[in-house]
Amino acid sequence: MDHPFDIACALVSAGQGRYNGQAPAAYWNMAGPFGGTTAAVLLKAAMLEQPGGVEPVALTVNYCAALVAGEFQIEVREVRSGKSVRHVSMELTQGGTIAATASLVCAWRRETWAHQPAKMPDAPPPDALPPMDTGTRLPWLQRYEFRFVRGAMQLQAQPFAAPQPAHSLLWVADHPRRPLDHLSLAALCDVFFVRVFQVRGTLVPAGTVTMTVHFHASAEEIAAQGDEPVLGVADAQAFGRNFGDQTAQIWSKHGRLLASTTQLAWFKE
Amino acid sequence: MDHPFDIACALVSAGQGRYNGQAPAAYWNMAGPFGGTTAAVLLKAAMLEQPGGVEPVALTVNYCAALVAGEFQIEVREVRSGKSVRHVSMELTQGGTIAATASLVCAWRRETWAHQPAKMPDAPPPDALPPMDTGTRLPWLQRYEFRFVRGAMQLQAQPFAAPQPAHSLLWVADHPRRPLDHLSLAALCDVFFVRVFQVRGTLVPAGTVTMTVHFHASAEEIAAQGDEPVLGVADAQAFGRNFGDQTAQIWSKHGRLLASTTQLAWFKE
Repeated sequence: MDHPFDIACALVSAGQGRYNGQAPAAYWNMAGPFGGTTAAVLLKAAMLEQPGGVEPVALTVNYCAALVAGEFQIEVREVRSGKSVRHVSMELTQGGTIAATASLVCAWRRETWAHQPAKMPDAPPPDALPPMDTGTRLPWLQRYEFRFVRGAMQLQAQPFAAPQPAHSLLWVADHPRRPLDHLSLAALCDVFFVRVFQVRGTLVPAGTVTMTVHFHASAEEIAAQGDEPVLGVADAQAFGRNFGDQTAQIWSKHGRLLASTTQLAWFKE
Repeated sequence: MDHPFDIACALVSAGQGRYNGQAPAAYWNMAGPFGGTTAAVLLKAAMLEQPGGVEPVALTVNYCAALVAGEFQIEVREVRSGKSVRHVSMELTQGGTIAATASLVCAWRRETWAHQPAKMPDAPPPDALPPMDTGTRLPWLQRYEFRFVRGAMQLQAQPFAAPQPAHSLLWVADHPRRPLDHLSLAALCDVFFVRVFQVRGTLVPAGTVTMTVHFHASAEEIAAQGDEPVLGVADAQAFGRNFGDQTAQIWSKHGRLLASTTQLAWFKE
């Protein structure tokens, strides 16, 4: 039986650069599916149009409208293909409404000088931490295994009197487990709860409007992670006038920075 | 006489959603103009299509090909306009080549709960630091006043034996001075030298392929900065396989986070 994530990313070709997919019920969030699967399926469509050996470098997804249940269409457009770097644009529509736009930088990446100034935070091993109980919650939460080191969301009856830290550190994996690849890595970049909930201790109407992912690791390094939890770090810099940001990193169990990501989420009040 | 930055951002309407501009000689870099002006002129074109009161929220620019001297065309496309949030796509072409694509999230932003977890780094006042001598260097360098607190680029005859810190802290302003606005703030997000030069101590073929800017401050807060230097902080997380990242923040003299930005730059070897 296919993994729910692979079902969420399943596409049927509808002509050159055109694909049809299904909004994934298994990843449903409050309004529409989890944005991580939308990012992943847009990345998948773009990569299906690339020659062999090309790898993702940078992905930006703009969330324009909530997806509804049922079929969606993706159109992939080749913007510019140089000797090594390629630029691609994607658009996801549903019933004539543009639900998401995206851009991908991808490339034939060769070995070069390499250096990782960022250091993985210290954390106890995932097995030392209990998984968050997601059993009766939203479908998308049940598709992940969250093991918080610190910064688990604490929703209160009333907002905190003073803003709490926006920082979270957690091990996270697909549930059921699935070997990591560029697609699930892209989705994991959106797995952190909207920082405004974390800082205020209460739910307010909110949603991601744009997310950018930078892929630092090779397909081989990502595959070396297997299906074990990755370490996620999320934080925020500023909230105000309806928008708040999130910065995050995804680390392999070996201390390799697999991806870094930033996003802005809208919130109502 | 118009400021060189305003000349760089000058656009002539060529029908609805279409504009013509000129690649700015005053901001020339090694190959084509400084990427910051390209970001600014794309933002300007998109904002010219918006109703009054709409402000920028998030801008992503993908640099697809170097601009050459002469005219370019920008096409702005309205993707989705909700009650408050608006999504726009932009494309810059020159002689039939797509030189840049971009997306903008903009919105009517209202007062809401606000909180700034990020703290401005300590720095001596700009007047206490000498400006970098840019007199005989590339044109775009002469359009800015750089006052480094630390992390000034030190180019060597040979690369450093060991990678140096990617961190830089500097006061920076337009030269000649110009009151800050969203356009010059977008350009300032690309003002930090490619981190790979900084870390390796040598120039290698390199260029920004994608930049994302998040705007945290209101037009009023940005205007309150006047023409005084902003404090810029730049760093990097990972370099390898032809790409290296940059994270940066732009702070007002009052300690307000005006914008945060991430980018990926390609490098050859």
